[in-house]
Amino acid sequence: MPAEPQSFDRVLSSMCTDPHPAAREAAVDFLATNPGDPGTYPTISALEDDAVDALGEIAGLADPTGYIASGGTEANIQAVRIARERAETARPNVVMPDSGHFSFRKAADLLEVDLRIVPTDDDYRADLEAARASVDEETALVIGVAGTTEYGRVDPIPELGTLAHEVDALFHVDAAWGGYVLPFTDIPWNFEHAPVDTMTIDPHKMGQAAIPAGGLLVRDETLLDELAVDTPYLETTAQATLTGTRSGAGVASALAAFEALWPDGYAAQYERSQANAEWLAGELRNLGYDVIEPTLPLVAADVPAQTFDALRAEGWRVSRTGNDEMRVVCMPHVTREMLAAFLEDLDGCRAVTTAPVASDD
Amino acid sequence: MPAEPQSFDRVLSSMCTDPHPAAREAAVDFLATNPGDPGTYPTISALEDDAVDALGEIAGLADPTGYIASGGTEANIQAVRIARERAETARPNVVMPDSGHFSFRKAADLLEVDLRIVPTDDDYRADLEAARASVDEETALVIGVAGTTEYGRVDPIPELGTLAHEVDALFHVDAAWGGYVLPFTDIPWNFEHAPVDTMTIDPHKMGQAAIPAGGLLVRDETLLDELAVDTPYLETTAQATLTGTRSGAGVASALAAFEALWPDGYAAQYERSQANAEWLAGELRNLGYDVIEPTLPLVAADVPAQTFDALRAEGWRVSRTGNDEMRVVCMPHVTREMLAAFLEDLDGCRAVTTAPVASDD
Repeated sequence: MPAEPQSFDRVLSSMCTDPHPAAREAAVDFLATNPGDPGTYPTISALEDDAVDALGEIAGLADPTGYIASGGTEANIQAVRIARERAETARPNVVMPDSGHFSFRKAADLLEVDLRIVPTDDDYRADLEAARASVDEETALVIGVAGTTEYGRVDPIPELGTLAHEVDALFHVDAAWGGYVLPFTDIPWNFEHAPVDTMTIDPHKMGQAAIPAGGLLVRDETLLDELAVDTPYLETTAQATLTGTRSGAGVASALAAFEALWPDGYAAQYERSQANAEWLAGELRNLGYDVIEPTLPLVAADVPAQTFDALRAEGWRVSRTGNDEMRVVCMPHVTREMLAAFLEDLDGCRAVTTAPVASDD
Repeated sequence: MPAEPQSFDRVLSSMCTDPHPAAREAAVDFLATNPGDPGTYPTISALEDDAVDALGEIAGLADPTGYIASGGTEANIQAVRIARERAETARPNVVMPDSGHFSFRKAADLLEVDLRIVPTDDDYRADLEAARASVDEETALVIGVAGTTEYGRVDPIPELGTLAHEVDALFHVDAAWGGYVLPFTDIPWNFEHAPVDTMTIDPHKMGQAAIPAGGLLVRDETLLDELAVDTPYLETTAQATLTGTRSGAGVASALAAFEALWPDGYAAQYERSQANAEWLAGELRNLGYDVIEPTLPLVAADVPAQTFDALRAEGWRVSRTGNDEMRVVCMPHVTREMLAAFLEDLDGCRAVTTAPVASDD
């Protein structure tokens, strides 16, 4: 097998990162464990309780219920599933901004609920009035995003939560990526700031845990009961997770990262990442690009497709938004030096790709 | 964090095992990679193609399509989802033997299909006539199990496949646990033996890979298209997996185990495990228990609840079937010495738990 471990030297597109050393070590220790079978693997199961408590502490939820999922997609699917099970209509609908992650489209397809997409405003945040016009008595769930995938924006979480509860819908916050940086901002996003019912918050993104470690939190433990399926052969009698066998590595890693970094390490990392994003935004503006200002450590800029392709050819892992901007996620592995090298290559690619066609004079 | 890595010394209940050293090493190398984002992580994505080819080789499917899933539950859910998407009825049904894994109940709940449970015969295999009586024109999927969770039985796979196709249903084989041992038996179970459309076959069970590594194989690549959801922000344009971010560790580990063990290592392991199971069955019979003969390396025996509980109290990780038999899965980490120690404790527990109530004479 061509074992060529991942290098993050040129990765600017991923919302995952190189795990913290403590997280990596814990993942290795618990590689062969399955928190999905707590009777057989009690140690990792107890650690999962601690990991959920950790997520609760980050997200302002005392006495939290939830679990460490395979990732944000599973957690988002489960939130939609809870809402569907709670709904008293045959065809419930789910209201989310167009900045919502594509996992919600997957969830809607899987669970056969209607997804009502609400436009975002000039600053790429959910348009509250449009959301208000979209909800009705068959709305089972309203979704707000706390750190959008494309622009790193945070929707008006308290207002969306109030709106959801006005129509007896549940309110889900997708903080898969933003959850580990938002505690160090003054932006309202969590269970203390708003009537949040369920939340996705992923240790394996800004939490610096090893994959797979997503997180699902629910305010009221009865919400998780909506997901329970009877489990013969296992010691426990019910299972609320979407998957069966699960990764102990992810669970142990999430907890180890938290213990190593919460809160000071995460705060320092947020400061570094945010400063890098703001610096990159400034440099891109200096180069003449239209830049979408970073609220969180994520920069999008209007870089032409040709230049983008040339950067990809140079080995830079960058990706594009639905509006064809280039996006750069300033994850912990993204250093100022890396961004400087990237900008140098960008400048070089630009010179080539925007050079005038050779004339014969 | 109380990092106390899992010991398998007394684990007789799990269908997972200590990974092969090569599998462990590969998992560690690829901990920080995400095959769910092939544009960013091309190396692991290419390894996944090889891992799927490996599964195809084991399961008798040339030019296979599929992916490495989080586990058998995901693969089973996806098989039901494919069938639901293919069905031309509003309320499709799925026919499976009562020995089917509980993940299919989860799938039915999630996907809102009707699950028609067919009884098993005296040997714990799907009753063909009952299956025939259950299918109708709204049947989207027939499920056969190749290595049941409770008794390690293999359903009449070719006959079930024929039956499925007679009513234009798809045919799914759940070989999550059995897939890596059945190639060394003369039992028909795979794509060559029967008109199988989709199959679950998990590297992280008898394949000795690290968790999470389940497997989904489909005979016709258009079946996987039923699952595709558009993916903005990623380089690839569609994603057929249930989860989003996925574990590169599981993928690399599955391939490394295959390269180390296929076919001779797996064959030798099967021989050892099967011999252990048969030996254990004989010893249990000698102790006076009713034993269900092992077809594959899994033994169930009618051990009373009191004795079972006493064994659990001694630290033995055993579990029970729906019929309250004790079951022991002879995974690769289960040695003859371990079984001998278990039998000794069983005998001791039996003496205590079956002792007559103290009389006053």
